[in-house]
Amino acid sequence: MDLKKRAGLIRLILMDVDGTLTDGTLTVLPDGEELKSYHVRDGMGILMAHLVGLETGIITGKTSKALEKRVSRLKMTFLFQGILNKYAVLQKILSETGLSADAVAYIGDDLGDLPVIKAVGLSAAVADAHPLVKQHSHMICSLPGGSGAVREFIEFILETQGHDWDSIETKLLALQRLTDLQS
Amino acid sequence: MDLKKRAGLIRLILMDVDGTLTDGTLTVLPDGEELKSYHVRDGMGILMAHLVGLETGIITGKTSKALEKRVSRLKMTFLFQGILNKYAVLQKILSETGLSADAVAYIGDDLGDLPVIKAVGLSAAVADAHPLVKQHSHMICSLPGGSGAVREFIEFILETQGHDWDSIETKLLALQRLTDLQS
Amino acid sequence: MDLKKRAGLIRLILMDVDGTLTDGTLTVLPDGEELKSYHVRDGMGILMAHLVGLETGIITGKTSKALEKRVSRLKMTFLFQGILNKYAVLQKILSETGLSADAVAYIGDDLGDLPVIKAVGLSAAVADAHPLVKQHSHMICSLPGGSGAVREFIEFILETQGHDWDSIETKLLALQRLTDLQS
Amino acid sequence: MDLKKRAGLIRLILMDVDGTLTDGTLTVLPDGEELKSYHVRDGMGILMAHLVGLETGIITGKTSKALEKRVSRLKMTFLFQGILNKYAVLQKILSETGLSADAVAYIGDDLGDLPVIKAVGLSAAVADAHPLVKQHSHMICSLPGGSGAVREFIEFILETQGHDWDSIETKLLALQRLTDLQS
Repeated sequence: MDLKKRAGLIRLILMDVDGTLTDGTLTVLPDGEELKSYHVRDGMGILMAHLVGLETGIITGKTSKALEKRVSRLKMTFLFQGILNKYAVLQKILSETGLSADAVAYIGDDLGDLPVIKAVGLSAAVADAHPLVKQHSHMICSLPGGSGAVREFIEFILETQGHDWDSIETKLLALQRLTDLQS
Repeated sequence: MDLKKRAGLIRLILMDVDGTLTDGTLTVLPDGEELKSYHVRDGMGILMAHLVGLETGIITGKTSKALEKRVSRLKMTFLFQGILNKYAVLQKILSETGLSADAVAYIGDDLGDLPVIKAVGLSAAVADAHPLVKQHSHMICSLPGGSGAVREFIEFILETQGHDWDSIETKLLALQRLTDLQS
Repeated sequence: MDLKKRAGLIRLILMDVDGTLTDGTLTVLPDGEELKSYHVRDGMGILMAHLVGLETGIITGKTSKALEKRVSRLKMTFLFQGILNKYAVLQKILSETGLSADAVAYIGDDLGDLPVIKAVGLSAAVADAHPLVKQHSHMICSLPGGSGAVREFIEFILETQGHDWDSIETKLLALQRLTDLQS
Repeated sequence: MDLKKRAGLIRLILMDVDGTLTDGTLTVLPDGEELKSYHVRDGMGILMAHLVGLETGIITGKTSKALEKRVSRLKMTFLFQGILNKYAVLQKILSETGLSADAVAYIGDDLGDLPVIKAVGLSAAVADAHPLVKQHSHMICSLPGGSGAVREFIEFILETQGHDWDSIETKLLALQRLTDLQS
């Protein structure tokens, strides 16, 4: 199946956090808390996916209160933290949603992502992903983790599904006007 | 109208924050607060604009106490936070100041900036802006957001308006001596 | 002795922190505490080394509570902090473990690492190491400090010792399933 | 006078902070405090300068408690903070120390550094300095601010003054052994 056909079927976009939504750096505080940096343009991409009716979610090996805040602010559907076996979580999500694996996209960077990358309908590796992750992914982003790679992946899916920039801008403006009316 | 003619008319320089005055990264704290990193050379550029009599302002979708501190320290004229509809804010500023759109410059990086970029007299995209923002901007900076792109934009305007380095250095030295006298 | 023969003998991988496990930046807080950023893929590399039975350790000139947290989380064997004379610590480790210097690998970036780099069986310099460190190291990583150079070094050792990706992935999956059973 | 002759006369190395010892980014906290990131290899360079009997100092436009901690830890001789008129401070230092301008080196990145850069015996611009600063400096570092440019400048001076790597390594080892004896 070719890349565009794969992208056309996606209803849910799942993603890794460290090295994918971030550049992989963990700023460790004296109490052990790990600070991470997300990219504003990835957040806009997630908002755009929601605007056209797609759902999004996160499967990550680590646990972070800050991540919970970001996921909640972006209104993502799924957040699975502290997950070693990401493949098991994918199966759980498929079972709960009734989606087939063909309707799910996933983007990641390292070996822990491989079982999910091999299983979903459309998979992507960030530009600085582990060579083995790149080898098994359907596409490789031009941007590294934490610099907009997730946005790039989402835009590819949206464009393939026929959402051109004008229609997305129109939806954004409609949302802005609606928010103006409500506030 | 050519680029230099456009720059010659500017009296007010407006700018986006995330991805423009910053590199787009948001370091999220456990309580949800988002830390951002600004560039010292952008701050110097804003000071230089004020030295030659131009005004500056910010229109941003997010809200941040740290940004309020920075804007106040740099003595910028406008700070509009939590804005989804940036175009409406531009209209409000034009109406309040009596300036025409030709006298306003704007620099941004993402889709939310597009309506303003299309409306002002001189617009710029940071080097790593979204392709659509680059396409609709009058000029594209050589530096990415958070690395001095705003400084680059301001210097272009200042040079076009005839402020050469010697005159700016003279103004800076005068300011320094004045501050020495006052303190 | 050639590089692969050297790598084949390694049982313990020692490493520097600042400029090696980090990119060398120290974010200084008002109370003098220094925050540092580690890379998630280096952590995965250390986990992989442990999975195949190798031990790991740290020798660093500085002292940091956050580092203690990270070392403990990654279950590394040795942590020597506040060390000016790293060579003396290496001798102590060799004496305590009964290992020969040929069984020890070390990766660093600056002059303080040189005496250890000259003494161990296999040494590596990060891509942005001091020229003299590069000159005296057995190998030079393609990645700079804090961006996965330690992971690169560990993978080179693991591959040389015959651990292919399939076997490591199998071990990771086994660990994941075991953790699922236990939890 | 050629570059090496200039470097041979240096007894005191002065430097800017933001954009020189840092990459120019200011992480602004909600209370307005600005966090900055220094580079460990610059710190080592300052230690090396002290080892061979040179003095070091800082002239910066901003004020920071964290900087005070770093300067104190590195045992630098001069710290002038909150300085708009850096040239006046240079004159004060020359007057207090009895040094001639030929014995002073300075490294900076922006317009505020220009009057000092034009006045000292040996001046350097970081790789990403403002074009005008590069134009007026005796040398341009290959590294940008915050990534080791100060170290590069110091090593150039040390090498010119005949301190080869072996002698510096010997001094470092002697310092390490002395510290071991004392502790």
